[in-house]
Amino acid sequence: MVQRVTYQEMRSEFYRILKKLELTDEKAGKCAEIFTVNSLEGVYSHGVNRFGRFVNNIMDGYIYPDAEASLIKSAGSLEQWDGHLGPGPLNAVFATDRAMTIAAGNGIGLVGLANTNHWMRGGTYGWQAARKGFIFIGWTNTCANMPAWGARDPRIGNNPFVIAVPFMDEAIVLDFAMTQYSYGKLETYRNEGLELPFPGGFDSHGELTRVPGEILKTFRALPIGYWKGSGLALLLDILAAVLSGGFATCEVPDCKQENRLSQVFIAIDITKLQNFPAIENTIGMIISDLKKSIPENENDGIRYPGESVVKTRRINLENGIPVNTEIWKAILKL
Amino acid sequence: MVQRVTYQEMRSEFYRILKKLELTDEKAGKCAEIFTVNSLEGVYSHGVNRFGRFVNNIMDGYIYPDAEASLIKSAGSLEQWDGHLGPGPLNAVFATDRAMTIAAGNGIGLVGLANTNHWMRGGTYGWQAARKGFIFIGWTNTCANMPAWGARDPRIGNNPFVIAVPFMDEAIVLDFAMTQYSYGKLETYRNEGLELPFPGGFDSHGELTRVPGEILKTFRALPIGYWKGSGLALLLDILAAVLSGGFATCEVPDCKQENRLSQVFIAIDITKLQNFPAIENTIGMIISDLKKSIPENENDGIRYPGESVVKTRRINLENGIPVNTEIWKAILKL
Repeated sequence: MVQRVTYQEMRSEFYRILKKLELTDEKAGKCAEIFTVNSLEGVYSHGVNRFGRFVNNIMDGYIYPDAEASLIKSAGSLEQWDGHLGPGPLNAVFATDRAMTIAAGNGIGLVGLANTNHWMRGGTYGWQAARKGFIFIGWTNTCANMPAWGARDPRIGNNPFVIAVPFMDEAIVLDFAMTQYSYGKLETYRNEGLELPFPGGFDSHGELTRVPGEILKTFRALPIGYWKGSGLALLLDILAAVLSGGFATCEVPDCKQENRLSQVFIAIDITKLQNFPAIENTIGMIISDLKKSIPENENDGIRYPGESVVKTRRINLENGIPVNTEIWKAILKL
Repeated sequence: MVQRVTYQEMRSEFYRILKKLELTDEKAGKCAEIFTVNSLEGVYSHGVNRFGRFVNNIMDGYIYPDAEASLIKSAGSLEQWDGHLGPGPLNAVFATDRAMTIAAGNGIGLVGLANTNHWMRGGTYGWQAARKGFIFIGWTNTCANMPAWGARDPRIGNNPFVIAVPFMDEAIVLDFAMTQYSYGKLETYRNEGLELPFPGGFDSHGELTRVPGEILKTFRALPIGYWKGSGLALLLDILAAVLSGGFATCEVPDCKQENRLSQVFIAIDITKLQNFPAIENTIGMIISDLKKSIPENENDGIRYPGESVVKTRRINLENGIPVNTEIWKAILKL
């Protein structure tokens, strides 16, 4: 059963619960906003569906609600911050802002953030920067949830990676993990009794499979592009650990207590470029060329990353955010 | 037929030919070096096997051998340069050096390079920076050689992407294009009558296929990770065009005259980090954890990107660089 909850109601419920956990007004408000917007924009897995776990992580002491990030090292356009295990989304919003501030002075800014927690939806920070006119490149490491290419046991992370650019008062936002399908998606397919559209991992015989339940058993999710995504995941982890001075995937506790993560936030101020403001035309030209593609299925248009977010946001603002009734009931009881 | 050519002989033949094309001593030497090292390190497709085409491109006026890159805009840690259609590898070496110089001052440096030519092997610039102690992130756009996900006609590029980090006097270098297999690799499989290990594109019925000849007919190479690699390719093109102020993939002439490319070079000076020099330990720990993976096939170890380069380099230095006899004959006649 699915019900619709208005943006305002969801935000105020989240805020109420976070206040009970002794978050300050400001922090409770910001966290409530992020979880609500993630839901509003269709990323329920890292919005309303994940809020209960976020609350548990605070109660269990994995997330310190009052921790503030502190500066460890500043070197020109590059800064390293310690997140002190504060709420991941708040640390990430802060680090994105810092990268933008540095970029506004120096053209580009990089913030490495150590000792933080799950940032929920990487796209949050891409939208944050791009809607203010910045290019954004960022990523996080994760627990070891994917075997390297050719391996059986998970030793690398699926390390979500985000690139965002401003586009017509909105943004183009690419936000993807290095596994072909997230574990959440695999569970959804399994629960609905469906096969995956493409192979998503290995079964117990070491064969590629489209059966989600098999992959959930082996924990052998497939890296995108086979050896290529495996290599990219490894390098993103190395860069995250090195640039933040924080933990690498192999040091992150198991996936249930996925904390002490390392993240990287790069912002570029496009107003500093020689071709500003014609950049808008360049991006418009690229997207309009993409749209001229001949679709495989006549009725499908070719979309750019983030395009559907704007539509989902509008629909959910008008009609309310769809939520599983059981999940919403549980939240109301918190 | 394959013969072995020594490093010295290959380099001096390339140098001789480039001097005939009126490159300066310095430029002929640098170009000869890059093409020889690419071959020495096993990337024959962008070394000796591509040298003839490079020479033709100079003779046909697509590459201006005496062009020098010029600064268009400097803004703190960010610079935009115009490559004036000079030799791609020379422009790219120069831009990598500039990014490193900026990083040495400001921690991070970004160079956008417009109006350049094919850089051959992206890994060249990763090794260049990482062996001098810098982190490197760089990419190039290309002609439209890949359909976007869901589309039939090629409108996006396979936009090779490079990440490199220093590692034990050598480097970890990830260098990959957004197509699952390069067209060169597809041709090799076809010529040897082999099927691809994994689907590499679409046949004329719009079905995924492992038959390389079918993909070469449809020109529908598969993006890595399906929709994910398609999105990444699009964003890399947008960033390359925007950050350089140069051409986007949709403005690059057809793939035969693939010039006026746009490229991005980012360098980070790791000595500026709070955790330097312990970075070496961090990377060593990550790699040694990776090496603990249980391999799917007992006899295969799990390798990190660039690991085999060091071995290939040593073997080819000792035994000579393997070259197709016909290709080498043609080069000797130039």
